[in-house]
Amino acid sequence: MTDSLDLRRLVASAADFDATLDALLAWEGVSNDQVQGRVEQIIDRIRHQGDAALVQLTQELDRHPATEMSALEVPQSALEAAFHGLPAPRRAALEAAAKRVTAYHQRQKQDSWSYTEADGTMLGQQVMPLDRVGVYVPGGKAAYPSSVLMNALPAAVAGVKEIIMVAPAPGGELNPLVLAAAWLCKVDRFFAIGGAQAVAALAYGTETVPRVDKIVGPGNIYVATAKRAVFGQVGIDMIAGPSEILVVGDGQTNPDWIAMDLFSQAEHDEEAQSILVSWDASWLDQVEASIRRLLPTMERAEIIRASLEARGALIQVDSPEQAIEMINRIAPEHLELSVADPHSWLPQIRHAGAIFMGRYTAEAIGDYCAGPNHVLPTSGTARFSSPLGVYDFQKRSSLIFCSPEGADHLGRIAAELAEGESLTAHAQSARYRVREAQP
Amino acid sequence: MTDSLDLRRLVASAADFDATLDALLAWEGVSNDQVQGRVEQIIDRIRHQGDAALVQLTQELDRHPATEMSALEVPQSALEAAFHGLPAPRRAALEAAAKRVTAYHQRQKQDSWSYTEADGTMLGQQVMPLDRVGVYVPGGKAAYPSSVLMNALPAAVAGVKEIIMVAPAPGGELNPLVLAAAWLCKVDRFFAIGGAQAVAALAYGTETVPRVDKIVGPGNIYVATAKRAVFGQVGIDMIAGPSEILVVGDGQTNPDWIAMDLFSQAEHDEEAQSILVSWDASWLDQVEASIRRLLPTMERAEIIRASLEARGALIQVDSPEQAIEMINRIAPEHLELSVADPHSWLPQIRHAGAIFMGRYTAEAIGDYCAGPNHVLPTSGTARFSSPLGVYDFQKRSSLIFCSPEGADHLGRIAAELAEGESLTAHAQSARYRVREAQP
Repeated sequence: MTDSLDLRRLVASAADFDATLDALLAWEGVSNDQVQGRVEQIIDRIRHQGDAALVQLTQELDRHPATEMSALEVPQSALEAAFHGLPAPRRAALEAAAKRVTAYHQRQKQDSWSYTEADGTMLGQQVMPLDRVGVYVPGGKAAYPSSVLMNALPAAVAGVKEIIMVAPAPGGELNPLVLAAAWLCKVDRFFAIGGAQAVAALAYGTETVPRVDKIVGPGNIYVATAKRAVFGQVGIDMIAGPSEILVVGDGQTNPDWIAMDLFSQAEHDEEAQSILVSWDASWLDQVEASIRRLLPTMERAEIIRASLEARGALIQVDSPEQAIEMINRIAPEHLELSVADPHSWLPQIRHAGAIFMGRYTAEAIGDYCAGPNHVLPTSGTARFSSPLGVYDFQKRSSLIFCSPEGADHLGRIAAELAEGESLTAHAQSARYRVREAQP
Repeated sequence: MTDSLDLRRLVASAADFDATLDALLAWEGVSNDQVQGRVEQIIDRIRHQGDAALVQLTQELDRHPATEMSALEVPQSALEAAFHGLPAPRRAALEAAAKRVTAYHQRQKQDSWSYTEADGTMLGQQVMPLDRVGVYVPGGKAAYPSSVLMNALPAAVAGVKEIIMVAPAPGGELNPLVLAAAWLCKVDRFFAIGGAQAVAALAYGTETVPRVDKIVGPGNIYVATAKRAVFGQVGIDMIAGPSEILVVGDGQTNPDWIAMDLFSQAEHDEEAQSILVSWDASWLDQVEASIRRLLPTMERAEIIRASLEARGALIQVDSPEQAIEMINRIAPEHLELSVADPHSWLPQIRHAGAIFMGRYTAEAIGDYCAGPNHVLPTSGTARFSSPLGVYDFQKRSSLIFCSPEGADHLGRIAAELAEGESLTAHAQSARYRVREAQP
């Protein structure tokens, strides 16, 4: 069955290559009108009926047995019990990952700054953490404790005072690894709610769920649509598309390793995308042989196969230079540079969510425990956005203090420009601070 | 007529104060279904018909005489001519403002960073400018050259390679001050297009308008709705609500100055909001008297009056502490601290877009030329967002380089965690880099 794997092999010099690549990369996370309408209804119900609607929707949509809101809050004791219930090696691994992720993110923390000019005028920015953040954790098969760490720890490092976590509990069941990770991250409150109703509760607050200032974390199309709808009422992180990897190889890495790296992306789901690029055609053949040999041994072979057939490709380019062009065109979420001197490539790489450098840096290592965040811009959005980080949980206020001398000087400029814009109250307000004009 | 000004006076200790303040602050920039539908149609036309649709829509909606796309691009020579055509004092003021804004924003520029661990593993982030940015400049009465500076200069400081500016030209007319400011900011291309069609052209590209990576700048409800719709395809800045100011006074500032500061916000439009807070009731009386006396002298008296009546308020609080609570609750776009020692207030102010400190720092000075950006989070969004800055035009790529020793150590942790998530390809990919597992 997997013998018949239909693996796309492209050559970048082919006449139709550009169109083929565009089609392969195309993905639009547009929700249809039905989803949109349903999400708007749900948000409206939560805004107007609060807890009552939240309990009812959770019963209906998650088949949760709770009959009142208190039964949907998971107590700290349950989080702690889940943590201590983990097998020791797993608990140690989770703690090691949390420690490294925290250490890396501490380097992202930004401080307030200011400077004072000769006339005593002071300018700067005050940097403050957000007050309260909501972290959405998906339920079911995609309930990943590593995502709990990656979303909650940057908020904690930023100094966010209160972290509210939500995760749907289908049939009342929660993943104990998720609860354990929540305990490790010192999450302040945990609600067993999900879907658009959880997003709405976090955005507007209910009697029980406190209103947050920003919502982060991945979710299905209802969650994504709800996040887009409440954007403005609260901050949100990026709306994520399917996960993808671009591996660039110089032909000297063990083909089995590369095959497994491609599988590790493809096993997420059928829409995930794994692309390999090399200028060494015979090595591409070797990787293809490894893929065909190893695929039947994989637990998630069918998901991997579906993903590779739908969205995967092995691409032969002419040169390293052409590989770099392809990187910048694709702007991959994950870029693996399986080459001899990855450092020398960096200055030319303009767009990538995360860059895994060298033969030993499997994306999986970065996903879990190297330190950097695994929440990354997908679907080419690395052109304009960044990995989730501490900076997403800090915000800035501009600081402006004019000395009387500074106001005298700047007030004249401001008044001149305000008059150019016919904003005469602006002009007069500035001019009051100019010396000869002062009463 | 202005004698009959109906000015809201509130006392924070009143029983119904909280509800009154909530109602006063309420503002939701929701576009109705009709606007939404129209915007989707326009985006769809631009995506599928490109330049042809863009010319047609610009003829229809802006009454622009152009019959082909080339007539909608404003040549650099026209920008230059507009700049040199300015009266000398205005040109000098614009240059002085641009210089200060640039100097301030240079302090926001972030650099790449990395660190190497004992085993040779390197972690960090590479910071890069966006490739290409679109700046939307509103047409008509709100065509402000200062907005050109505030949106384009941070992009230029970030190192954005190409800045594309768009501004609608109703009846074919553009504001020469806007063109002059575009020249001063070294904008790369300028198109006389606006509305949802300009946003769509920037987001998706047409034969003539290049696709950008991020769109910034204010606009009407069609522009805001279009920006929300293309978010994800491109980055966008915040969707701005009406402008607002919260002035907190200790009763020692000249009441005329404060009245004019409130006017300077109110003159923007009828939805703008000016709120004054003090614990000195007799000073509030004095400011109110100044407002009544000065209002009839203002050019935009009717807009100011409409704004003050609809959304303005003078609020008497018990104490400076209660004023600080109010600041953090309102999370104002502009906060003017017209008090004796504004520096001592800063640590307690958690939410504000920009803080204008002391009696001499009129908001108008900050709007034009002090240096900080005047594009600020409105409608309470200072809870989670920041002034527009250089950081909005930079993005980060995570860097991960594992040494063989690092991969040996980290690969074990990653494999353990991946198994906990049943992601066995992840586990195997990590384990290949662990020593004893290497072939």
